[in-house]
Amino acid sequence: MTLDEAKTALAALQKSLHAYTHAAGLLYYDGVTGGPSGGARERGETFAFLSGELYKLSTGVQAGELLDFLDENKQELTQAEARQTELMRKQLRELRKIPMDEYVAYQQLCSESSAVWHSAKSKNDWLMWQPYLEKIVAALRRFASLVEPDKDPYDYCLDQYEEGLTQQTCDSFFAVLKEKIVPLIGRVKEAGQVPYDFLAAEVPTAKQEELSRWLMSLIGMDPAYSTIATTEHPFTTSFSKHDVRITTHYYEHDFTASMFSVIHEGGHALYELHIGDELQGTVLAEGCSMAIHESQSRFYENILGRSRAFISFIYPKLAQISPAIAAHTPEEVYKAINRAEPSLIRTEADELTYCLHIMVRYELEKTLMHGELEVKDLPARWDTLYKEYLGVDVPDDRHGVLQDSHWSDGGIGYFPSYALGSAYGAQLIGRMKRDVDVERCLASGEFAPINAWETEHIWKYGRLYKPGELLQKALGESFDPTYYTNYLEKKFSEIYGL
Amino acid sequence: MTLDEAKTALAALQKSLHAYTHAAGLLYYDGVTGGPSGGARERGETFAFLSGELYKLSTGVQAGELLDFLDENKQELTQAEARQTELMRKQLRELRKIPMDEYVAYQQLCSESSAVWHSAKSKNDWLMWQPYLEKIVAALRRFASLVEPDKDPYDYCLDQYEEGLTQQTCDSFFAVLKEKIVPLIGRVKEAGQVPYDFLAAEVPTAKQEELSRWLMSLIGMDPAYSTIATTEHPFTTSFSKHDVRITTHYYEHDFTASMFSVIHEGGHALYELHIGDELQGTVLAEGCSMAIHESQSRFYENILGRSRAFISFIYPKLAQISPAIAAHTPEEVYKAINRAEPSLIRTEADELTYCLHIMVRYELEKTLMHGELEVKDLPARWDTLYKEYLGVDVPDDRHGVLQDSHWSDGGIGYFPSYALGSAYGAQLIGRMKRDVDVERCLASGEFAPINAWETEHIWKYGRLYKPGELLQKALGESFDPTYYTNYLEKKFSEIYGL
Repeated sequence: MTLDEAKTALAALQKSLHAYTHAAGLLYYDGVTGGPSGGARERGETFAFLSGELYKLSTGVQAGELLDFLDENKQELTQAEARQTELMRKQLRELRKIPMDEYVAYQQLCSESSAVWHSAKSKNDWLMWQPYLEKIVAALRRFASLVEPDKDPYDYCLDQYEEGLTQQTCDSFFAVLKEKIVPLIGRVKEAGQVPYDFLAAEVPTAKQEELSRWLMSLIGMDPAYSTIATTEHPFTTSFSKHDVRITTHYYEHDFTASMFSVIHEGGHALYELHIGDELQGTVLAEGCSMAIHESQSRFYENILGRSRAFISFIYPKLAQISPAIAAHTPEEVYKAINRAEPSLIRTEADELTYCLHIMVRYELEKTLMHGELEVKDLPARWDTLYKEYLGVDVPDDRHGVLQDSHWSDGGIGYFPSYALGSAYGAQLIGRMKRDVDVERCLASGEFAPINAWETEHIWKYGRLYKPGELLQKALGESFDPTYYTNYLEKKFSEIYGL
Repeated sequence: MTLDEAKTALAALQKSLHAYTHAAGLLYYDGVTGGPSGGARERGETFAFLSGELYKLSTGVQAGELLDFLDENKQELTQAEARQTELMRKQLRELRKIPMDEYVAYQQLCSESSAVWHSAKSKNDWLMWQPYLEKIVAALRRFASLVEPDKDPYDYCLDQYEEGLTQQTCDSFFAVLKEKIVPLIGRVKEAGQVPYDFLAAEVPTAKQEELSRWLMSLIGMDPAYSTIATTEHPFTTSFSKHDVRITTHYYEHDFTASMFSVIHEGGHALYELHIGDELQGTVLAEGCSMAIHESQSRFYENILGRSRAFISFIYPKLAQISPAIAAHTPEEVYKAINRAEPSLIRTEADELTYCLHIMVRYELEKTLMHGELEVKDLPARWDTLYKEYLGVDVPDDRHGVLQDSHWSDGGIGYFPSYALGSAYGAQLIGRMKRDVDVERCLASGEFAPINAWETEHIWKYGRLYKPGELLQKALGESFDPTYYTNYLEKKFSEIYGL
């Protein structure tokens, strides 16, 4: 094999992997957006079949020889080819330690579990889903023991979403947050709540749909390459930079839930829509890591979307669809949207209490993966931790342990990304403001300069860099969570006059 | 290989083929129901990749040896296994004659052509799509010459949709229709038109959507296993009996267009929903042929759906969604819905003039496949034939040559199935009436006995029999198109008082 042949083979291999990933991803998307519930088992079978083919292709002798050859000739590769080789070798190494039949059975399990979780949540029936989660936790614990026998099993999970992330890092990160946020929440509570009941006035779904389309266009999502659908739990999926899907969930008496969900998923989508052309069809055509991804989505949702300047800008649009909004000033709407108050649902939580929701999940995942908590005891433990961390009583599992979709398809280890991403975002805004007049952009609804900065510093690179490298490069300094705590301190002190 | 091993391998091979077909089918469905237009090229690439894998699996040495072994041991196989072997051997034989790269390129071409046709139709821009159709016709002519060098190329196309169908059969069938229908249309014209303008009163899309759901439930489609979406051109697709999708297209000033489209696609869907459990996951889990499929869809749409008894039954529901309907009697609605009048759009044509639309397409396909008509001359020829056969002037290509989706994804040879299917249906109703009180069922909206009869005589068998065999078995006699011409004669003489 010549080097040129090997490079061509590397590109071809990735195109094939991409085709399987596209088809499998579409099966998942179809199942949660419109596919009939009765077809779940067969979708799971097809999904598992494609996963098996993907496994064979990724771990086969041919791929192994090719990647070894490329690795031996690293110095002759472009930066992108070298990173592709590195990532694919890591995946091959890890996957080969899991027997294919177990891997395929796990994919099918996740696909079916996702469908069962949807029903279980809508029926508020934990017991219906419990056996699936039991199998998922058991499988992940087994995979961790096979792939990284010397590593803590939860560290294995964290690394799947954020290369190199460990509990040690999370523990000290969450300790900083807890130290600063918990007393701040206390002071907010003493200050008395701002009025926000008027946000619960009815806004018909058709009006909310119109708002979604308007927001998507405003933030710069091209309708030729992106769509919106509805699901139980909002998410973003991307098949290439030319095909990015977001979803939302409409509540007629809580229109801001979908509104901020659209901006959040819009942040994910913008990222995927702006990955470099030259990376398309390769394993680098994805966000760098889940925390970097969440740093974009939570940045658009909160730091931009819940800012005073942006709320002022969209106020006339909101007043159009809701007479209750029109009856209040932009400043009142800004405060209502940003009221901080311990609550039950993570995706609808305010910026200040949000991380407590993540810490609950982090504790639970850790003890599940360590075998210290059994799945059957999870709902009770969930409720206890919500009382302890947020001081709220969980009325039922639909508003408790069943609320998020992540665990239903095996996403244990994902949640810390949200908190980390939020903190990355607070540090990024400072750096961005040196180049872009962000306030002026938000006040005039002009996202092009913001998106251009993100493209230049984050989006275009895809997975070319490791998360830590990319962040260092974009920030010009190391990650520091006090940017985030300072941001929260300033914002909420000002809102509540502390 | 023992016989038992071979039987297990046969089932496993079909499961793999089914997984690829499921994924590829979903890509198509996604592209026409909601996928962003900008993703068409990549959907086409993934579709082509999966088609390539399907090709390799269907034509590989392993499949060949397995099927030969099973064929040599035919007498030891169940009826289903023998038919599976027969169909898969036919496919292998045919596919092997087409080089894989040409086959894959053709699949990608069809996928892209379908997307371009969608735009071209909505923009009324024939030239945009012309080069795609040119390539499709060229590819089909080449495939015909490779697969069946001694056969007429259009006969090759017809056989793809209706095993054994030839131009000879079509010619004599259409001759019978022409002889009977053309004078009947003349007499209808002399009799003067029934009033039907009131059908064009506005019915909002939301009301039509509600009607669709009501109709689907009424005719017996289980929502756990079937869904509806909207597309430019309505169709049905099925991934298994647990996952059947229909689509429709709403026009606010022509609610009966979607209404009968839903019943038509509902007929296709009911067929797929009732194929035998034991055939699922095999190549027999499909409708027997396209004409048999259309015999079901056009049966539900017309013979049942446009009958006086059924219109009386649904009249209160229609009166609810349209004040214009409420202002007329059920009998007036029945006549308006069945008014016969030469028109431009096939899918909205009445039962009497419908076959003329098919004959136009049959003539065009024949001359295209024979190389006697060039694609660039197709629109002009289309318009000429519409004038000649139906006496109407085609105002633009959107209402002319661009109206149907079939050719856009390679479906040349499909159209005659509609006419044949209509004729099969007219013969089937007589046989069914011996066992089921169809009039009473329709008058009371009770579809269970009708569906049970269809299941017993047609649906459950899937592709177990050849179309001719199945029909003979269900009818107890050979196909005879005069049942159809008599049916039309009786129905329209009565409506127009001839």
